[in-house]
Amino acid sequence: MKRIAPLLIAAIALTGVIAAETPNSQSADQDPATAIDAGSKPVGYRDWRLISVAHEEGDLHSFAAVLGNDIAIKAYRESTLPFPDGTIIAALHYRHVPSEENNKVFGSEQSFVPGDPTNVQFMVKDSKKYAATGGWGFFHFLNDGKPLTDKKTIQDCFDCHALNQGRDLVFTRYAP
Amino acid sequence: MKRIAPLLIAAIALTGVIAAETPNSQSADQDPATAIDAGSKPVGYRDWRLISVAHEEGDLHSFAAVLGNDIAIKAYRESTLPFPDGTIIAALHYRHVPSEENNKVFGSEQSFVPGDPTNVQFMVKDSKKYAATGGWGFFHFLNDGKPLTDKKTIQDCFDCHALNQGRDLVFTRYAP
Repeated sequence: MKRIAPLLIAAIALTGVIAAETPNSQSADQDPATAIDAGSKPVGYRDWRLISVAHEEGDLHSFAAVLGNDIAIKAYRESTLPFPDGTIIAALHYRHVPSEENNKVFGSEQSFVPGDPTNVQFMVKDSKKYAATGGWGFFHFLNDGKPLTDKKTIQDCFDCHALNQGRDLVFTRYAP
Repeated sequence: MKRIAPLLIAAIALTGVIAAETPNSQSADQDPATAIDAGSKPVGYRDWRLISVAHEEGDLHSFAAVLGNDIAIKAYRESTLPFPDGTIIAALHYRHVPSEENNKVFGSEQSFVPGDPTNVQFMVKDSKKYAATGGWGFFHFLNDGKPLTDKKTIQDCFDCHALNQGRDLVFTRYAP
C-alpha cells in the first residue's frame, strides 16, 4: 500500500487523465484557501516564499520547490506544530532532468534542473473544514490549471501524509 | 580546465578554508548590492522570490534554491537579456542527501532533501563596477556568514560563468 500513493500520483502527473472539465478562476474577493477549495490555483502563489526544495526518485523523477504563504513561513520559522489554521503549503513539481546545456559547459554529466512542470499541489490547513483528513485539505492542479477531482486520489494523498503524524502530516522541513 | 572550477568550489564548500577573519553586518543604509560587496549577506535575501531549483552531482552533491531580488524576477519573467544593473541572484546551497524519515514512510528509497547548508552565493549585476568580470560580481558566503576573499576562487566563478555568454553568464533558467 505504501508504494501505491506515489505510483498513482506519478501516473496521474504523466497522463492528466482525471480532471475537472474546466479550470475555475479566482474571484477578486476570494482568499487563497477559498479559491483552492473552489477549484483554482490562488493568485500570486508563485510569489510565496521558499520553504525548501525536494527531489523524489522511485517512480516519480520529480523536482520540487515548496513555497508557503505568510502563515506557513511564520509557523516553520517558529517551529509551530501543529500548523495553525490558514497555513497553505504549495509544492511546485517539475520533472527532474539532466541539463544538457549546463553539462556541455561543465564538461561533465553533473547538472540536473527542473524540466517540464507536472503539477502544483497545495495543503491547506483548516482544522474544522478538513477535520476528516487530519485538518488538511489536499489539492492537486494539472498544468492546464484544472484541479483533480478524483476523490480516491485525494484520499491517497491523505493516507500517505497521515503516516507522518509526528510532524502534523507535513513531510517538508524548512531549509535555513 | 572546465572541471577545475566545480572541483574548487566543492573543495571550498567542504572545508571552508579560505575566508575573511570576521563576517561583516549590513548597515541599515546599505542596499543589498553594497552590503554584499562590503562582505555581508544582505538582510532579507531568504525572503526573495524563487527563480528555480538546482541539483549538481559530479563532485558537488549539492541541492540549491535559486532566489532573486525584484529586479531579477522581473527580468526573468520578461526574458530580459542582458540582465539589468541591480539584478541580484542568490544560490542557497545545501547537501543533496537521502531523507531517511521520508523513505521510511514511503517504504522506498526515493526521497532526497536538502541536508546541511554549505554556502550562499550571489551574482550582482553592475555593468560598470564589475566590467572586468562581464558586468557581474561573484560572491560566496560560508555558513558562518564570512565571505570568501580568495581572488583566485572568485575568478574561477567568473571563468566558468563566462563560458555561458549567450545567457549573460547566468546558468539558471526560470521555473514557471
